[in-house]
Amino acid sequence: MRVSDIAAATCSIARALGAIGDPWTLLILRELFLGQRRFEEFQAQTGMAPYLLSRRLAKLAARDIVARVPYRQRPVRYEYRLTDKGRDLHAVVVALAGWGDRWASGPEGPPLTLIHKACGQETHPVLACSACGKPVEAHDLRARIGPAMQAERRLNRERFRARTRHAARPARSNEPAPSDKTESAPK
Amino acid sequence: MRVSDIAAATCSIARALGAIGDPWTLLILRELFLGQRRFEEFQAQTGMAPYLLSRRLAKLAARDIVARVPYRQRPVRYEYRLTDKGRDLHAVVVALAGWGDRWASGPEGPPLTLIHKACGQETHPVLACSACGKPVEAHDLRARIGPAMQAERRLNRERFRARTRHAARPARSNEPAPSDKTESAPK
Repeated sequence: MRVSDIAAATCSIARALGAIGDPWTLLILRELFLGQRRFEEFQAQTGMAPYLLSRRLAKLAARDIVARVPYRQRPVRYEYRLTDKGRDLHAVVVALAGWGDRWASGPEGPPLTLIHKACGQETHPVLACSACGKPVEAHDLRARIGPAMQAERRLNRERFRARTRHAARPARSNEPAPSDKTESAPK
Repeated sequence: MRVSDIAAATCSIARALGAIGDPWTLLILRELFLGQRRFEEFQAQTGMAPYLLSRRLAKLAARDIVARVPYRQRPVRYEYRLTDKGRDLHAVVVALAGWGDRWASGPEGPPLTLIHKACGQETHPVLACSACGKPVEAHDLRARIGPAMQAERRLNRERFRARTRHAARPARSNEPAPSDKTESAPK
């Protein structure tokens, strides 16, 4: 499977990643959520080369995540706005920021704080159950894999076994030989 | 800025992406959250080449997102488990899955459903305010950019202006010339 095939997979995460799973795209989304709309501002804040930025924006527009809207005529100039589909990536961006705050902030602390307008307080949004409203962590959830994804996963496994059976060496030799410190030092 | 520099930026999102912002890494995380722990199973389900998979796993281990734990001696074999830091990426993965469900599911519907163990119901987790517990959407939040990030953003802007001033052509010529249909067709 190549990166370009990810979007075609059954899994929603894989599909989402096919659309937005590259760091540059997510940095552009960050700028959009911070209220930026202009090409030059994206360029200044992400440090992306114009060619790369332009390609990423075109991809986002083609996927209906951003809309290109003219803000001036003669010469015509465009700005970029999040569509409903784009704004709905909000939870992804906020969750990434929260994780970054908890595990990767520097000594100066989180670079940005979020205020919940309705209650006026600083907020660190958490995931909550859509049914009962209580906060949910990883261990509070059980995944029920549907028939399509179950079939796909079974097929993946069978194909993988067939591939490694036909190879000259046994399946597990695909795992790199123990070589680094963690592997060779018994605990 | 190169992709490798993203992790050094002040923004938490940029930092998070420096650690996990590539589609392959997120597919491995998906497998870990689905309970998989073995190299071969990751290989079968993501379709990654062993070399790439091994490199991504090593990166995740170096960042303390997964732990490598021996499950057999003679010959020693390892499995991969999420650390606390890794499990805390849960909200990112669930948010990505939710977005994929809403905007990119096929005709067969979402491939996987989540059950909230405590209330027993199917759940589509949403972001909620950590202070008042109410669900929050993009428009419910206001970002307050801290002094460090403000300074960084100002510097980005100044540097960008200096770069484009010194270039032979004006700043906005960095935006690609209108050429595609959306741009040339007036509405």
